[in-house]
This record gives sequence, C-alpha cells and structure tokens, in this order.
Amino acid sequence: MTTPTPAATVLSGLDTVRPWLEDLYRHLHAHPELSMDEHETAARVVSEVRAMAGGEELEIITGIAGTGVAVVVRGGEGPTVLLRADMDGLPVQEATGLDYASTVWTQNRQGESVPVMHACGHDTHVATLLAALRLMLERRDAWSGTLVAVFQPAEEQYNGAEAMVADGLVDRLPRPDVALGQHVLPGPAGSVQVAPGPIMASCDDFRITMRGRGGHGSTPHQTLDPVVMAASLVLRLQTIVSRQVDPRATAVVTVGRISGGTKTNIIPDTAVLEGTVRTYDAEVAATCLAAIERAARAEAAAWGAPEPDVETFDHLPVTDNDRGVTDRVRAALAAELGEDAVRVFEPESGSEDFGVLPDAWGVPYSYWGFGGFDAAEWAAAEEAGTTDDLPSNHSALFAPVLQPTLDTGVRAMVAAAMEWLGR
Amino acid sequence: MTTPTPAATVLSGLDTVRPWLEDLYRHLHAHPELSMDEHETAARVVSEVRAMAGGEELEIITGIAGTGVAVVVRGGEGPTVLLRADMDGLPVQEATGLDYASTVWTQNRQGESVPVMHACGHDTHVATLLAALRLMLERRDAWSGTLVAVFQPAEEQYNGAEAMVADGLVDRLPRPDVALGQHVLPGPAGSVQVAPGPIMASCDDFRITMRGRGGHGSTPHQTLDPVVMAASLVLRLQTIVSRQVDPRATAVVTVGRISGGTKTNIIPDTAVLEGTVRTYDAEVAATCLAAIERAARAEAAAWGAPEPDVETFDHLPVTDNDRGVTDRVRAALAAELGEDAVRVFEPESGSEDFGVLPDAWGVPYSYWGFGGFDAAEWAAAEEAGTTDDLPSNHSALFAPVLQPTLDTGVRAMVAAAMEWLGR
Amino acid sequence: MTTPTPAATVLSGLDTVRPWLEDLYRHLHAHPELSMDEHETAARVVSEVRAMAGGEELEIITGIAGTGVAVVVRGGEGPTVLLRADMDGLPVQEATGLDYASTVWTQNRQGESVPVMHACGHDTHVATLLAALRLMLERRDAWSGTLVAVFQPAEEQYNGAEAMVADGLVDRLPRPDVALGQHVLPGPAGSVQVAPGPIMASCDDFRITMRGRGGHGSTPHQTLDPVVMAASLVLRLQTIVSRQVDPRATAVVTVGRISGGTKTNIIPDTAVLEGTVRTYDAEVAATCLAAIERAARAEAAAWGAPEPDVETFDHLPVTDNDRGVTDRVRAALAAELGEDAVRVFEPESGSEDFGVLPDAWGVPYSYWGFGGFDAAEWAAAEEAGTTDDLPSNHSALFAPVLQPTLDTGVRAMVAAAMEWLGR
Amino acid sequence: MTTPTPAATVLSGLDTVRPWLEDLYRHLHAHPELSMDEHETAARVVSEVRAMAGGEELEIITGIAGTGVAVVVRGGEGPTVLLRADMDGLPVQEATGLDYASTVWTQNRQGESVPVMHACGHDTHVATLLAALRLMLERRDAWSGTLVAVFQPAEEQYNGAEAMVADGLVDRLPRPDVALGQHVLPGPAGSVQVAPGPIMASCDDFRITMRGRGGHGSTPHQTLDPVVMAASLVLRLQTIVSRQVDPRATAVVTVGRISGGTKTNIIPDTAVLEGTVRTYDAEVAATCLAAIERAARAEAAAWGAPEPDVETFDHLPVTDNDRGVTDRVRAALAAELGEDAVRVFEPESGSEDFGVLPDAWGVPYSYWGFGGFDAAEWAAAEEAGTTDDLPSNHSALFAPVLQPTLDTGVRAMVAAAMEWLGR
Repeated sequence: MTTPTPAATVLSGLDTVRPWLEDLYRHLHAHPELSMDEHETAARVVSEVRAMAGGEELEIITGIAGTGVAVVVRGGEGPTVLLRADMDGLPVQEATGLDYASTVWTQNRQGESVPVMHACGHDTHVATLLAALRLMLERRDAWSGTLVAVFQPAEEQYNGAEAMVADGLVDRLPRPDVALGQHVLPGPAGSVQVAPGPIMASCDDFRITMRGRGGHGSTPHQTLDPVVMAASLVLRLQTIVSRQVDPRATAVVTVGRISGGTKTNIIPDTAVLEGTVRTYDAEVAATCLAAIERAARAEAAAWGAPEPDVETFDHLPVTDNDRGVTDRVRAALAAELGEDAVRVFEPESGSEDFGVLPDAWGVPYSYWGFGGFDAAEWAAAEEAGTTDDLPSNHSALFAPVLQPTLDTGVRAMVAAAMEWLGR
Repeated sequence: MTTPTPAATVLSGLDTVRPWLEDLYRHLHAHPELSMDEHETAARVVSEVRAMAGGEELEIITGIAGTGVAVVVRGGEGPTVLLRADMDGLPVQEATGLDYASTVWTQNRQGESVPVMHACGHDTHVATLLAALRLMLERRDAWSGTLVAVFQPAEEQYNGAEAMVADGLVDRLPRPDVALGQHVLPGPAGSVQVAPGPIMASCDDFRITMRGRGGHGSTPHQTLDPVVMAASLVLRLQTIVSRQVDPRATAVVTVGRISGGTKTNIIPDTAVLEGTVRTYDAEVAATCLAAIERAARAEAAAWGAPEPDVETFDHLPVTDNDRGVTDRVRAALAAELGEDAVRVFEPESGSEDFGVLPDAWGVPYSYWGFGGFDAAEWAAAEEAGTTDDLPSNHSALFAPVLQPTLDTGVRAMVAAAMEWLGR
Repeated sequence: MTTPTPAATVLSGLDTVRPWLEDLYRHLHAHPELSMDEHETAARVVSEVRAMAGGEELEIITGIAGTGVAVVVRGGEGPTVLLRADMDGLPVQEATGLDYASTVWTQNRQGESVPVMHACGHDTHVATLLAALRLMLERRDAWSGTLVAVFQPAEEQYNGAEAMVADGLVDRLPRPDVALGQHVLPGPAGSVQVAPGPIMASCDDFRITMRGRGGHGSTPHQTLDPVVMAASLVLRLQTIVSRQVDPRATAVVTVGRISGGTKTNIIPDTAVLEGTVRTYDAEVAATCLAAIERAARAEAAAWGAPEPDVETFDHLPVTDNDRGVTDRVRAALAAELGEDAVRVFEPESGSEDFGVLPDAWGVPYSYWGFGGFDAAEWAAAEEAGTTDDLPSNHSALFAPVLQPTLDTGVRAMVAAAMEWLGR
Repeated sequence: MTTPTPAATVLSGLDTVRPWLEDLYRHLHAHPELSMDEHETAARVVSEVRAMAGGEELEIITGIAGTGVAVVVRGGEGPTVLLRADMDGLPVQEATGLDYASTVWTQNRQGESVPVMHACGHDTHVATLLAALRLMLERRDAWSGTLVAVFQPAEEQYNGAEAMVADGLVDRLPRPDVALGQHVLPGPAGSVQVAPGPIMASCDDFRITMRGRGGHGSTPHQTLDPVVMAASLVLRLQTIVSRQVDPRATAVVTVGRISGGTKTNIIPDTAVLEGTVRTYDAEVAATCLAAIERAARAEAAAWGAPEPDVETFDHLPVTDNDRGVTDRVRAALAAELGEDAVRVFEPESGSEDFGVLPDAWGVPYSYWGFGGFDAAEWAAAEEAGTTDDLPSNHSALFAPVLQPTLDTGVRAMVAAAMEWLGR
C-alpha cells in the first residue's frame, strides 16, 4: 500500500465536484462577455468562491482593473503560489451547434452590436481554476503556504494583465514565489503540453503614417508621393529579419495592412502601414522596433518629406517559462497524468499576456497547455496530417470536448500548485 | 473700305443674339447634369436648334449614346466641318456665390445623393456652340459646305465620345473633313490658346490585383504575402519611366491607390494597386502598359503566386492637334481676335476625349482653349506669379466671367469653322 | 549683277587654300594627341598662324591650361566674335584603313601605352578654324571688329574649357559679344545642323561609396551590409526621374557601375555606385543631384551606418544655344550653303564643354554640327533606316569624307562669324 | 580496485607516445600544404602507419581523390567505426611567432605564389588520429571490430569529401556503422564540445548573372539595364528569409558580391551577384535555392530580358549529429575527460564537409570540438566577455597550445571509438 501524494489527496474530491464543475462550465460557455466587460463572470467567480469558502472569511479582492478578481487563501507557512485564469470571450458568432452554445449579442466599445463566444476557451480556465480552488479548500490538511487565484480580464485585447498591474496588483496581493497558468489548446483531451523557455512570442504592433504631399497623378514632381514611400518602406522592413537579426533568433516583421489613396489619378497626402513584430527575445524585439522606426524616418528623409508618425501598441512580452519551475511542473504533471500524457509545448507565434503578472514582481513562472479535442479524432488527424484543419482557438467551431478536458485542467492545476504547496 | 471676311459677316449678328446667349448660359449653368444623365441639357439643345431653324427641317439626330445630339446643316458644296461641345457637369457643390449658381442635387449611379455643378465649364461649350450654329444659320449666304454640331455626353467620365462611336456615330453622321473643339480654361477672357501637336495627354488607368495566400502575421512562410508583392511592384513600376521610356518623351506612371489587408497581424489574400499612365505618344503609352503588365506578372512569378489581375480602363488618346489644321485655326483666330489674343496652348497632363470623335473617321482635328478669367485679375496674378492659385476647372469656385468669355467662344468657333466653310 | 556678301568675299579664297587645308587636316589626323597632351597640335596651330599672319604681329596667347592657344585679331571697330576648336584625340586604335590613318601609341596619365585616334573629328575642327582664320586674315577689307580664335585642349575629358577658364581666360582675352563653335557629326557632308535652345545635355557624374561594416556572410546581424544598401539605393534613384522631376523635362539618372564585395560569403565594408545625370536644364540637374545625395544619406541612416561619400565630378553645363544668336547663325548658314543644307540639330544626350567658355563671360553662343558622311551613302542609310549603324563619333571606324566636309566646315565658320563682323 | 575501461586500457600508452605525437604535430604544423596538394602530408601519414603497424600488413588505401588515405584495421567481430581527419592548410601567412611556425610559400592553382599555414588546425586532427590509431594498434586486446581511419584532402575547399566519394570511397572501404570526427576550436584546452542535431550549417553558394543589353548611360530606353536588375534582385532576395522561410528556422541568404559595369555612363550588358545560403535544414536550403532561382528568372521576365544564368556550387550538407550516436559519444567523453570537460557545441554558421563521408553510405555520425586555448587565458576572456577577440580558426595568429590540446584530441577520439569497439 502506497501513501497517496498530496496532490492525489486534494484531487480525491474531483468525482464529487465534477457535476458542479461541468454545470459551471456550461453556464460560463453560454454567457461569454467581451474584454473588460466580464462583469457577470466576475460576479459568478465571487459567488462561487463565497459558496465554497463555507463560513470562512476568504480574502476576495474585486474590481482590479474593473472586473479582475483575486482570491487569497492563507494556509500557513510555505511558499506563495499564484494561479491565473483569464475570463474574456471574443466577438465571434458561435457555430458549434452545442446545446450550451452562446447566443449572446452585446454592444462593443464602438456601440456596435456584436455576437460573443468563448471561442478561445477561457471558460475552461475559469471553471478549472475555481474547481482547483474548491478542492484545495476542501483539503487544507494536504498543503501549506499561500494560494492566490487571479481571474484576469481582457487577455484577448492584450491589456488585461497590464491593466491589473496598473491598478495596483503588486501592492494588493502577496508577492508570489511562483506563478502558474494554463490554456486549453489543440491536442488530445487528457494530455498537457509543457516546455521550458520561450513558448509564446512577444508581440509589438506598429502603425506608420508616411506623410507626403498629395496632388494630381499627372504631376508627381509637385507632390511627395506617400504611396511610393510606403512601398519602399515595406521592402526595407524585409531587411530587418534578413540582415539585422541573428539568423538563429526567431523574428517576424509583418505588414498586415497597407493603405494609401482613393483613386487612380490622385496622389494622396499620406499612406499607412500597420504591422506586428513577433519574437522570442525582448532584445530581438527591441532591435526590430528600432530598425522599423529608423527605416521609416530614413524613408521620409530620402524624400525631404515630413517626419512620419511611428506608433507602437499592444506590447506583449515573450511568455518565457522558467526552466526550474517548468521542470518541476513537468514532473508534477507526469506524476499525476502519466508520462505519456505530457507532450512538448511547441513554441507558438501567438502571444499571451499571462507573463505580465509575474513580471510585475519579477518572479518565475510556467505556463502550459491542455488538450481539448476528442482523443480518437485527434489521433486520426495526426495520422492523416490534418490536425491543422480541426477547428482551433478563435474559430466559430471551437468546442473542447467536456471530458476529459475539464478534469485534466483541474488535475494539472492542482498537481502543479501542490508541487510547491503540498506537504 | 474693306470687304468683311465671311467670318465677320456671320459674326455681325452677335450683338443681337448676345442676350439670348447669356440667358441660355445662365440657365445651363444653374441646371447641370451628371455624365450620361444630360437629358434636360440635350432637350434644351434640341429645342433651341428647332427654334433657330425656323421652319427649316434640320437633321437633328438624338439619343446617340443616350443623350448625345448631332445637328447636320447641309449648306451646299464644300467641306464638312464637325464642331463639338460636351455637356456634362460634375458632382461638386458650387461655392461661387453667383446668382445663377447651381443648387442641384441628384442621385448618382450608386444611388447616392450628390451635388452637381458645371465646374468644368461645359455650359460655356454648349452655349457658344449653339450661338455659333444660330449665327451661321442666319447667314447661310456667307458659307458653303456641311456643318455638323455634336453635343456629346460624359466627357468627365472619359467615355462619352467612345459611347457615341460605339452607338454608330460614323454611320449616322456625314464624314467630316475636319473636327474642331474648344474648352474654357484658365487665362484672360478674350484670349485663346492654340498649339499644334500633342496638347493633352493620353490616359490609361489600370488596376492590378496581386493574388497571394493569406494567413496569420506570425507565420509568413505559410502565406504568399500580397502586401510585399504590391510594395515591390510599386517600386518596379518606377523603373518604367526611369529606364524604359525615352528620356525625351513625357510619361507618367502613378499609383494613386494601394490597398491590402485590414489589420496588423493578418496577412491578406490580395492587395490592389490603382493607377494611371499619362503620355503624349501612343507608342510610349503602349510601352508603359506592356511594362506594367510584365512587371505584375513577374512579381507573381517571383513568389510562385497565382497570376495577378491586370485591368486597364478609361483609355483616352493623346489630343494631338493636326499641324496643318491648327495653323489654319490659329490664323483664323488671330484674324478675328487679334494677334495679341492668341496665346500658346501649353501641353497639359490632363486628358480629354474630344479626339475620339475624329479618330473614329481618321480625320484631322484641332482643339483650343479660351480664357475665362477677368483680364485684369489674370494680369495681376501673372505679374505676381499666382495664376495657379486662381480657382481652376473642377474647383467649386470655378466661375468664368460672363463676358468677354462667351463672345470669345462664339467668335473663335465661328472663325475656325468659317476657315473651311467661308466663301 | 549682284554684290557678293562679305562672307562670300572672304570665302572667295577657299579654292586657293584648299590643298593646304586638306594637307593640314591629313597631318593632324595622322598625329592625334590625348587630352591635355596636345603639344604638337598646339605648336602646329601657332606655326600656321604665324605663317598666315605674314609679317603682322598677331596676338598669340599660348599655354592657356597647358596647351590651349588663342589668337586675337583686332580688325577695327565692331563686335568681338570668339570662334572655338577643340584639339584632343581619343585612346582608340584607328581601324579606318585610311592612308592617313593614325598609328600613334602613347603613354596615358597612368603610364599605360595606349593607341590614339582623332575618333571624334576634332582634327576637322582645328583645320577648318585655321582655314577660316587664314581666309579672314586675307580679306580684312571685308570685315571689321575683333576675331578671337580659341584652340582648346581636353574636351574629351570634359575639363579643357574649365581649365582654360581657371587659367585666366577671361582676363587674357577680350570679352566676346558672341561665341561660335561647331562639331563634325553624323549627317551628309555638305549639310549643317542648327537649332536654338538646349541641344546637348548637361552632365554630372557621381560616385557614391556606401559604408557598412563587413563580416562573415553567415552572420549578417553583426554587419552593416553595404551590398543591400547599394542595391536599395539603386532602386531609390529610379524614383528621381519617375517622381521628382517634371515629366515634361528630360532627365536621366544612370548607375553605370555597381561594385561591392569579392566573394560569396564575405560581407564587404563598402560598396560603390558610379553614375551620371543628364538633363537639358540646370535646375533639373540640381534637383537630381540633391535627390541623389539625400537618398544616399537616407540609405545610410536607415541602417545606422556611417555617412556615405557622395562625390560629383565631370560637370558639364547644358549646351543651350541662344535663340537670337542661333537665328542669325541659321540665316547666315542658309545664305551660304543653301536652305536645303540646313538641318535641325536634334537634341543629343551627349555632352560638350564648349559652353563653359562663353559662360565664363556670360555671353550668348551658338553651336552647330556639320555632316561628315558621304551624301549618297547617308541618303541610302536614311532610306533604309540604318543611319545608326554607320560608324559614328568615337568609333574606330569614324572617318569623315574629306570633302565637302572640310569645305563646309570652313564656309560655315566664316559665314557665321561674318554675320557679326562683315561690313 | 576498479577495472580500467577498455578506452583507458588503450590510452594507458599515451604517456609513451606523447613525445612522438608532439614532434609529429610540430612537423605537420611547419609543413602545411594547400587543398588537394597534401602530398607530403599523405606520405607522412602512410609512413607513420607503416611504422606503427610493425610487421603487420595493414590495408592502406592511398590516392583516393588524389591525396586521400584510408587505413583499415580488421580487429575481429564487431562494429565498423570510421574515424576521420582532414589534412589541408590555408593560404595564410603565419604570424604566430612559434618556433615551429610555417614559413612555407607555394604556388596555388592559379600559379600565384602564396604563403601556407595550418591556420585551421587540421594538423592537430592528423596528429591525434595517427596517435589514436597507434594506441589502438598497440592494444588490440582491448577492442574488437573494424577500425577505418580516413585522412581527407581539401576540406577548406568544401570538395575533398565529395571528391573521395566520387573516387569510389563507398566501394573501396568497408561500410561503417558509425562515423566520428573532431575539430580543434575556440575553447579551453582540455575541454570538448558536443551536441546532437544540426551543429554546423549547410552551405550552398550561388552565382547569378543577370543578362541585359548595354548602351550609353544617356539612353536607358535603348538598353535593358542589368545594374537595376541586379539591385532589384538583391532586395527581392531579402524576402526569402523574411517571408518564405519558417521564422523558427535558421536561414541566411547573403549576397557577398555584386558587380556590374565599369564606368559612370556606360550601361553594361551583364551584372553578377555571388552569394551563399546557410541553413540547418536541407528542406530550408532547398526552399531558399528555389526562391533564388525563381526570383532571378522573374527579374529578367519583368524586363523582357534574356534568361539569367543561375549557378550553384560548393554545396555542403548540414552537419547533423545523430542523437543516439552523439549521446553515446557524449557519455564516453564525459567518462574519459570528466563531466566538467564536456561543453555544449553551440551551432555554428560555418560549414564542414565531414558529413559527406557517412552520408555516402547513409550511416549516422557525430562530430565534436576540442578546445585549443590556454585554459586560464580562456577563462579570463570568458569572464571579460572577450572570447571573440582571441585569434580563432583561419587567423594568422591561430595557435592551439600544444597541451593538453593534443592529449585531449587523442583521448576523445579513442574514447569515442572504443564506445563502439571496446570489449
């Protein structure tokens, strides 16, 4: 007879809470809210936490950056572990046909009526973190230390974590020793994806407005042609990745939008480029952004044109998993889920603002994925090389299978947290 | 005592018709119509011609290309001379403050409500051609031959003359020996502008759709980036004028519009360039258009991308005044208006579809300008070097002074026509 | 009976001097000298002038800019006319097979042994100017005023006229009222080519050294790649003619040489562009040169690279014939040679430093061409459209037919000079 | 008491052979030979092998690709292991000041007299492989299997291994089960550098000749300007790495040389680009090469120019260490040299043709480095971050410290070989 691990002790209650977990998830899925508008979700988080606390006076901090919620459970001596879930949905019209599919429409910030869907699975994050919290509250005998559960707004807009930090997060919460987060992703339900180092790219969006001087298309010499400026600049931006960044580093400089002029024969006053920089290294990102600005200013100088406007926005750091923390997370997940269930998290060019929270304190973190697809369907797709064709995050058809997705999310979160807190 | 010239004989009636001419002009100015919508104008032309014909059965051909009108006056042996006026206004809201200013709004082809103004002075063309016709009908003793007056729709859209040709112009009218046309332009009222050779540029508009394959901005290698294609193509198009056209020729290749993508991080499927080619030589234009198409196809080939769409439209030939015809026109105008009133028509990069009519028969033509500005105001502006600041054609403030603008237009048209028809 | 014109009076001696003229020409042709090395030619000029002066003490100024010679003949009241011939040959190995062909080899400035040939016909200029001078000295009764004959070095290097100006030309010679020059050109012998306005292009050569930082080809991020800089700059230079110069102006910006690096995998420190700007308008040339410099500096700035070296050299102004002077020259040539012999000088993209001399005083000038090809051969080539295939100036086969080329050059120069000096 | 490992048994003779090893090395260092000219070196290899064989008739195959030598030692049952050393020096004038420095000058293939130096340390490779062979021959009791020692010419020219394969290597030698090679590199003497996977880049050099049509710089429209073509192509090549290659892959496309034209005003007929492609993945290299060719052909097509010449040469595959083999090598080296002595081989953008040999049979391999710098000096440089300033391979100052460099090379080679052969 073997003694169960502390994590197993906590998770022994999973069978009991599962019906509540699944109902909670379905409710959240059917009631998505847009970024910074997660009022109902936040209220539900608070009411669920109050319910699971029993009579205990838990520290529940609400209204961080509007809708953010944090729960602090002080469980005696030991490390402080921050667990994070993001809460927001997307302006996507759900097409999954699920009986708990969203039919919500709401007004966006521009006053337009838009559909809303949990198309990125943040509902699974909220539900599994609440379940992990409930299970740990039920077995406080199994752990010691401080648990901080953070429910964050507006990950999709890349500014929710930043807004929480700006709203005093560091002063309002105890300093964690480690921060943990997870995301439902393509992959077989039941599996997790873990890797140390940079796993999600940094993001820096930019907008460049080249300023020329418009005029008739037949008299170019009386103008400063911003269309040619913008075109020339797009070509020059190619030299950043090809010549100015270490070939062994990963860097992308994409111009996703170019726009100048309205018709064939009128040279416009301005032309606009909008793009994004993705890297796995802050220094590389800085190199790219400096080169972009230098290139834009040089382009104007080449024509004797006015200074361009060069704006950057939507900055997200690299999600750069600490090696030591991640090695422990990996071991804990392998112990709980089995070695076979632990896959490698392949670096993604997508971006994520989770890291902004631990970065605010300068503490290490690890972020992992858990699969949301029917395992048989996924295996067949892997066999056929068609996994890219399955409806992924942000798709109107994105629909994680209920189980073992939710169970896996709960088990992973508990196992990882207990790696630090278990006694 | 000297015998009056035949032109002077015809023009002796000008004093008498002047009040009618000015009223007619003010009416036309106050009732502008958009291109291909010149129904009221055409009806007025017909009713005026009927009135001036007295009981005579003139050949009046209506409905050529919708609103086009031609009047054929067979006046015995002799050459056939085609005189042309264009009839359409522009979607501009008049800001002249004239008491006969247009307040017209109408629906354009897209169903939008737009203001209309004779902002290019085509009302002066219609009025002066009708007056010339009236004077010549009154003094048929002074001339012999066939007079054809053409009132053309849709010059502003560059397709009215073409539409008339497509609608059987060549078969419906007698073949002219020469075609004459005029345009009110910046310059002192009372003066005309004449030059042989190419005086207005050819025009060929183009639209190029580069076809790539869209995708996420962070995975460019899975896409074919049409933004970079379009940018590269814009730069290559610069080499047409710089390297592929005789430096002594005039050629312009302008990309007036570039558009691809909607946001920073989505690589779009396509990007579009729209532009215009202006030259004074059909061969140069052909060189440019061939080079544009070759460049666009090569750009796609460089990426292994689908063939681009390369469309050309709004072709207008060079307005290339026949030297012999123009020498005679110049002499006739100098005789009627005085040598000092005849200025040099400086080649314009603007375009005009008048030449399409004589080109349909392959007959020579001459096209001249007549000034519409107060002579003192113009002289002061010339002195100050500020003539470019005066409100020119297409401006909401464009307002030819009534006189001597209208008289000059009538005198020029009669004098030129009589150069061939006078006896 | 008609009185001969003063020019005809002077030219009545042509039959007598013709044998001397032809011998002199053959001698000069067989003894070409390189630019700035025209010592024998200059000495022969001086000895011929002394011989034709008889006992008269003519003012002969030698050694202007090394080998330049000027002869001043003060002939009483009246205008001062400067006549110019250039003296230098080219490093070309003659392949004409003429019995007076050059077999000369000499050392060039770099100490290399090179062949020399009068491949541009400057020998005809020297011979005909000497003959004109001799004829005018013989009939001083026919004219009044001051005649200045200038024999200039180093036209082929574009710096002979400039060197004469730098060597005090303006102070050493009387100020002319008009300057006249001529060049043997493709065209039928017996004909001349005359036109007012800009007939030969300005020239400004440039050399741009882009300064990067070299390194191994596999680590571009540790370098500043001057090859990409140079390539990008070449493309940007295309926008000068395509966008920055009036489309109606003639301008050429050619990069004739690009050079950077030595092998596949070493990124060099620098790359060099060499090119030329040709225009018919000093302002246009200035626009181009400013744009080139701006573009080069912006290119460096885009990379954060050191400032490039931008040098210009070999400046030649437009040869811009004064209209009034040229009208008089044209009339004089037509009177002497017949109207049919006077052709239009089509503007050339080649350049010439004749204008530097009159520009030094700010006086008007005219420069014309005279044909050097057998008239029948030329007519046949014109018929066949193959005149471009005939061996032109700078060809190793360039061989003006002796007559009537020489006679025409003498008659043209005398007739033009006598337009101002004849009494 | 522990039993020595088989490797230790073999290496127990090292103390005895060390003087011979060091003398041999100094001799080789003082007598470097250029690629494909390694006649003396090959002869010395043969004579040393004969000496160490005693009376035994070893299989010595000479003259493979000219100077290549292979020694086959059949030692009974067991795996076949190929050990490789490259033999050639470089045309560098040694500046080390060592008392055994090279003073050799020789004629290169172009007949020029050039200095020669073992500036890349191949002398250490030859000496240590001979020593390893001698030690293993002395203790044939310690191992079983077949040992193949290959002494390869012309690694520096990237074609020695290829030449051996072309000269029948596969048929002339027994098929190995594994191939092993090593290179002296920057790093502390006594240490080795090991890593699985791609450790040295692939190389594909290219030469593109753009074919235009030359002419005078002032008449670009009569030419097809290859300078602009080449410049445009250089810019387009930047899009390969920036857009067409997976951002997570390493790829370099460098144009190390651009050359077209001779002077400012002559547009040349052709322009040449020479460059190199470096990757760690054959598929990425293929993508780059296909894109280069496509770009060059499209560039010509854009101008209607003749097809360009696109040549590739000097292909080297990625040196891609087999993971299984390398794990075993690493373990063996750690066992022999100590765990601390085994460093990570950081992937290099340089290239190496070792892999061509095992690739000829399709067998796995591992290639590692051994340090050549004084350990204290290296540690100080690491501390100061100045290791890049130390004289590295190909430097005229490159001078591995004699010991423990040579000992470490011998011990590493024996230990690795014995991992397969030891009993």
